[in-house]
Amino acid sequence: MFKVEHIGIAVKQLSVSIPLFEKLLNTPCYKTEKVDYEKVHTAFFKTGDNKVELVESFSPDSVIAKFIERKGEGVHHIAFEVEDIEAEMKRLASEGFTVLSDKPRQGADNKLVCFLHPKSTNGVLIELTMEMNKTSGL
Amino acid sequence: MFKVEHIGIAVKQLSVSIPLFEKLLNTPCYKTEKVDYEKVHTAFFKTGDNKVELVESFSPDSVIAKFIERKGEGVHHIAFEVEDIEAEMKRLASEGFTVLSDKPRQGADNKLVCFLHPKSTNGVLIELTMEMNKTSGL
Repeated sequence: MFKVEHIGIAVKQLSVSIPLFEKLLNTPCYKTEKVDYEKVHTAFFKTGDNKVELVESFSPDSVIAKFIERKGEGVHHIAFEVEDIEAEMKRLASEGFTVLSDKPRQGADNKLVCFLHPKSTNGVLIELTMEMNKTSGL
Repeated sequence: MFKVEHIGIAVKQLSVSIPLFEKLLNTPCYKTEKVDYEKVHTAFFKTGDNKVELVESFSPDSVIAKFIERKGEGVHHIAFEVEDIEAEMKRLASEGFTVLSDKPRQGADNKLVCFLHPKSTNGVLIELTMEMNKTSGL
């Protein structure tokens, strides 16, 4: 790895948190996106070469809804950009990390993504992320 | 703001977590540092233009020890680099954020730092950070 591609923050209401983070980061939200299979709405902000992604659940059984119920609003995951996501998944699995899927899947923001179980990473939910157009056939 | 300067992660034992993060990030720890007034040892990793800072407490009454007791290991704070920390502290206070000190103070890694209360930032402890040599007289 890689730079920090984005920091994912679980929030209860984008309508409250978008203006809050616009003030905090002093930059406008440049994109919102619905991610159906995660049951979330997301909102993105640029901070230099990195991004902040706010994530709001639209279903009580989503991962984000359960996270907020357990821990409250706050940092949910850290996403690192990788050059070759499949090679990196193999490397990390061979180092003993728990890779949470066999194949990368499509995430928000035109990315292929994959997560590592936080029990293998000192409690930090790590996302690997790679631009979709870096691979052929995916 | 600013790029993500670093992500601060609270860990129980650097002796365990340094080799773990060296494998995870595929890069060596390039610096360790003791920060007496925070009662912590820190360890730094470069990930592109950003850093990961692991933080281990050496006293049971430190902020980090209490954080781990309450929440376990995991992301403790997100640090954003700013051009002029005092101007940014004023701007954020005027926007309604709770700035946790009147003046910036010396942090790890040759930085002036200041924190925002997470109650004003959707549960995320935000650190502002600026290189020491950017100011005269501090």
